[in-house]
Amino acid sequence: MALDPSRTVRELRELQELTGNENGAQRVAWTETWERARTWLSGLLSDANEEIDEAGNQWFTVAGESDRALLLGGHIDSVPNGGWLDGCLNVLAAVEVMRRVASEGRPPLTLRVVNWADEEGARFGRSLFGSSAACGSMNDQDELRRRRDANGVALPDALAAYGVSLDTALDARREMKTAAAYLELHIEQGPVLESLGLPLGVVLGTFGVERHLVTWKGQAAHAGSTPMDKRRDALAGASKLELELREIAARVGGGAVCTCGGVTCKPGIVTSVVETAEQLLDQRHLDANQLAELLSNAQAASERFAQEENVDVAWDRIWNIEPILFDDGLVGLADESILEVARTSHKLPSGPLHDAAEVSRSGIPTVMIFVQSLRGLSHTKLEDTKEADLELAVQALDRLTTKTMERLSP
Amino acid sequence: MALDPSRTVRELRELQELTGNENGAQRVAWTETWERARTWLSGLLSDANEEIDEAGNQWFTVAGESDRALLLGGHIDSVPNGGWLDGCLNVLAAVEVMRRVASEGRPPLTLRVVNWADEEGARFGRSLFGSSAACGSMNDQDELRRRRDANGVALPDALAAYGVSLDTALDARREMKTAAAYLELHIEQGPVLESLGLPLGVVLGTFGVERHLVTWKGQAAHAGSTPMDKRRDALAGASKLELELREIAARVGGGAVCTCGGVTCKPGIVTSVVETAEQLLDQRHLDANQLAELLSNAQAASERFAQEENVDVAWDRIWNIEPILFDDGLVGLADESILEVARTSHKLPSGPLHDAAEVSRSGIPTVMIFVQSLRGLSHTKLEDTKEADLELAVQALDRLTTKTMERLSP
Repeated sequence: MALDPSRTVRELRELQELTGNENGAQRVAWTETWERARTWLSGLLSDANEEIDEAGNQWFTVAGESDRALLLGGHIDSVPNGGWLDGCLNVLAAVEVMRRVASEGRPPLTLRVVNWADEEGARFGRSLFGSSAACGSMNDQDELRRRRDANGVALPDALAAYGVSLDTALDARREMKTAAAYLELHIEQGPVLESLGLPLGVVLGTFGVERHLVTWKGQAAHAGSTPMDKRRDALAGASKLELELREIAARVGGGAVCTCGGVTCKPGIVTSVVETAEQLLDQRHLDANQLAELLSNAQAASERFAQEENVDVAWDRIWNIEPILFDDGLVGLADESILEVARTSHKLPSGPLHDAAEVSRSGIPTVMIFVQSLRGLSHTKLEDTKEADLELAVQALDRLTTKTMERLSP
Repeated sequence: MALDPSRTVRELRELQELTGNENGAQRVAWTETWERARTWLSGLLSDANEEIDEAGNQWFTVAGESDRALLLGGHIDSVPNGGWLDGCLNVLAAVEVMRRVASEGRPPLTLRVVNWADEEGARFGRSLFGSSAACGSMNDQDELRRRRDANGVALPDALAAYGVSLDTALDARREMKTAAAYLELHIEQGPVLESLGLPLGVVLGTFGVERHLVTWKGQAAHAGSTPMDKRRDALAGASKLELELREIAARVGGGAVCTCGGVTCKPGIVTSVVETAEQLLDQRHLDANQLAELLSNAQAASERFAQEENVDVAWDRIWNIEPILFDDGLVGLADESILEVARTSHKLPSGPLHDAAEVSRSGIPTVMIFVQSLRGLSHTKLEDTKEADLELAVQALDRLTTKTMERLSP
């Protein structure tokens, strides 16, 4: 059976019919709609050996000459009112590649397709659930036991309905013992490839992230009775930092991105100087040293602004993660594969996290391919990619699978 | 009976005992506590002729040789958890002046003390109720009929319990027919006099105000996947305007104040560039032309920033009021009075509005005296003024009363 990338596009549309509505995809993990999608997926690969692990990940296996396995992964779950591609493109492209490989007889390596459970974390706010369990990095089970969804349903109860328990989820690590490499295709969810006019790119890794709450504290004062030179305006500090972030990103370079996602002002009324400004800060870089430089530059600037404005500033880390670099050898193979099908390639970092980051940081050689997103939109029903680009992406994943098999074969 | 400023301080403390608690003053208009304060006030001036007008204003009159009346005004109502001086200082200082004047026999002009009803608007959000009715500027009766307090009580019902009806409130204009001048003493509620080390100042008038909501509209975009040069960040526009406001105020000069009281960001999450930033803007000046200049400068700057940031900007007026200048002659007399009791005087505008603004814009010669506020605090139980300064303030109001009587006498 020859590879048929157009079938992938048809199956994506079929899945959207089956599990979406006029507002978009509704395959939220740990719901009936998600289960319907998993059952439908089973039907597509009825010849493969199927199993669901202790974390709810769905595995399809075609045995090869060696037990060592090449993994192709994605996630069929979506956010509520999501797009038709995020997560499931990866799964369905991998299905098509597995069909082609299986039709050619016993492959040199075992080939496995994994549908990771709950990548989005849409119901309980815990993303990368299945991949973090299987890759051994999950360590927040105690905290997860207390989580509830918007209707008050406890996370353990919701998972139990799908045969998953936090007590045993880490047993899914067993699945990774034979893993030799991991490949993932995903829509870019950003504007870079579209702005370059390119269908495909190789992902170098996922950004390291430093996420902080910066709190500026001045003095509330009446907007009418307080002369300008007697003010201690917390918002002035936040505004200076907001505008300085772009300078810092440019200075550090290397694709750095810095974002102030919002400022909350107190008392926040029209008749008062702002006493407290809470500023959300997100800084990302693919290089750990340069990420540290972004952070220290922003902190130093904030101290300077606090002095200039006679206000106080304090930093609280919300979350951080180190940059996760993909495998050099696989990056090279992905680049070759893209050049073969699209004549031009481009290497770029991934801003969002993906299951591939969990796999990569567990030590398994990993790479991702991005396909262009129209207008950079994702997590909305407006998410889209040209069909021709989707087909090129399936071809690139197929070539990359072949090249990786060859590279890893004994 | 000689003027006894220390009695005013004692009576202020007595009123606080009677109508305050551990959280501060509780004399919210149209409540039992407020009524208790009014009854107590009646007891202080039992020799004067008392009347309550159709808007709930409480008048005490000592008849003079002429029917033409010099008015001394204040308001005994407070915000909830208010300070011990805001509003009632004026009333009690006027009481002491009236005692002194009455003890000296029939004055050349009629002297009246007015306790304005509901200056603060704390219960129904409508400030300057009594003074706007008496001065004829109240024109929002239809809107007021629909207002309710936090417990759902309709404004007309609350007022009816105190004999006030919106249908007849404007009949209180009758009280102003004989008014020849109006004097009001108030705490500054700002830091200017304290920073100059002065107890007292003459108020030149109340600021004109231009209050706007400035809405910046960019494009939400993922904080990780959107390169810096592809962003349309609404918060960047708001930040530039926040920082430009001080430059504009300095350029226009003349005591201009410009305040951004807050910015509301949407989606306002750490992983997204800000799509919409709603910025509260308040600009004030004592000169109408310079106020217009503040506004046009800010609007022009916002257009420039919108272009630089590739975002949209729109302005919506929330509220505005023209500057209200006090009477030149009375400003001179107030300045003389202050110089006599405190050796140094200072002329300053009022940022907050006061009942005096309503009186002044109805055409009656008006002036205010400010007494220093410690740390500029007001509308809190921390509101305070040194006793020595309070006593100087009573003396200054007394001198001003005498000078104004002399000036206006036939």
